[in-house]
Amino acid sequence: MRPSLFFARTKLLMYPRRQQELIRLIIQLGLPGDTQLDWSLLDIALTHPTVGTPNYEQLEFIGDSVVRLAASEFLWETYPDKSVGDFSAIRKVLVSDRILAQLADSYGFDRYLTLAASAVGDPSGRVSRLADAFEAVLAALYLTTHNLKLIRPWLDPHFQKLATEILQDPARQNYKDALQEWTQAHYKALPEYRVREDAVKIDRFQRFIAEVWFRDRHLGTGTGQSKKAAEQAAAKAAYTQLMEQARG
Amino acid sequence: MRPSLFFARTKLLMYPRRQQELIRLIIQLGLPGDTQLDWSLLDIALTHPTVGTPNYEQLEFIGDSVVRLAASEFLWETYPDKSVGDFSAIRKVLVSDRILAQLADSYGFDRYLTLAASAVGDPSGRVSRLADAFEAVLAALYLTTHNLKLIRPWLDPHFQKLATEILQDPARQNYKDALQEWTQAHYKALPEYRVREDAVKIDRFQRFIAEVWFRDRHLGTGTGQSKKAAEQAAAKAAYTQLMEQARG
Repeated sequence: MRPSLFFARTKLLMYPRRQQELIRLIIQLGLPGDTQLDWSLLDIALTHPTVGTPNYEQLEFIGDSVVRLAASEFLWETYPDKSVGDFSAIRKVLVSDRILAQLADSYGFDRYLTLAASAVGDPSGRVSRLADAFEAVLAALYLTTHNLKLIRPWLDPHFQKLATEILQDPARQNYKDALQEWTQAHYKALPEYRVREDAVKIDRFQRFIAEVWFRDRHLGTGTGQSKKAAEQAAAKAAYTQLMEQARG
Repeated sequence: MRPSLFFARTKLLMYPRRQQELIRLIIQLGLPGDTQLDWSLLDIALTHPTVGTPNYEQLEFIGDSVVRLAASEFLWETYPDKSVGDFSAIRKVLVSDRILAQLADSYGFDRYLTLAASAVGDPSGRVSRLADAFEAVLAALYLTTHNLKLIRPWLDPHFQKLATEILQDPARQNYKDALQEWTQAHYKALPEYRVREDAVKIDRFQRFIAEVWFRDRHLGTGTGQSKKAAEQAAAKAAYTQLMEQARG
């Protein structure tokens, strides 16, 4: 059993340099530098499993629920008239690894995340690493106060910007779903994806190439750092072209 | 935009009878009858979509994140030494429709949920209805205080009991996964499920019959109110028998 619930531990770290680093991050997030915080949890949240234990894995597990709740609450408060279908589509994007890694990147998480040299040389793991650390940091902030007060003030503006973009996009930024709905509605059949890892890397962030086919017709091609990302990119190319043809 | 964040609305309902009902539920959950609560939210949380709008749909969307967070935090506090793999396996069961419906049932949610007569006659929808209402009630409690203080005191003991059971079970109560892991490990192949809806209903809560097959061998049969439940039951029969054979 861990130390008692609803009790904020605010002891400073034993390493003044790391402490200074983490205070800098907190200020960057827009929180006061003298925020009462469980600094050891924040330190763990920014420790990659390659370094040893404790690391961010358990916190990431909690953070995944924290970001989901923050997104749900934000949507419910901001868009009382939207359908639950819209809520789900938007939340799916807001809590995706792609978006969480982008947010982590915008705050320069690379500078704060400690990891073993072996992991640094693996650029393909960068997106999931950043997303994981971001979730873990959310968990550390949540577990300090047991509510979202240290999170929503700086996270909401990002969610607002993203939600506005997603609502303007008829595909809700999920092109695989949108393409599938379209082929289902028009032909009662699903598109097919063919993904390969490129032997001659296009660049180090674009490991995979996906093609999307429908009934022997090649609809689009996309590249990405993961299979999923490459498929989304292919679906986006295909969907955009189909919509242009439909309009034209 | 909804009324401001972090502000608890505690106005009583205009219908004294419904108000009395909901106070009874709150007391049953183990909370004080004079709990400061957003009673209108609790009322909506116990209103089925067949009745009209507002209904529990939006709250269920939030409640899904609330129960996930409550389970995550509970596991992190209670089992500091368990792996994230164990956390995930246990959380999957704790937040499943099956368990949430069971909990709702144990508090007699049927007595509090208002729904149209058409829905009452649909026993097959009962599990998801109870699970949805349970999640929505958790959301109403969460949104009153914006933390888990009205939830964890009565939900934790259930989680504790369930988690203990799940940890004693080598299949972690997910027999489909366990069976799949077993056939993968031993034969590098997956079992196959054949599900049918029974024309002559076994009883009104057991609509589906699933058989699980592996390489032309019939491993087990199960019934359930949903396809998924029937498959789990078939997998459980198959897995239990395989383990007995392995031991014998």
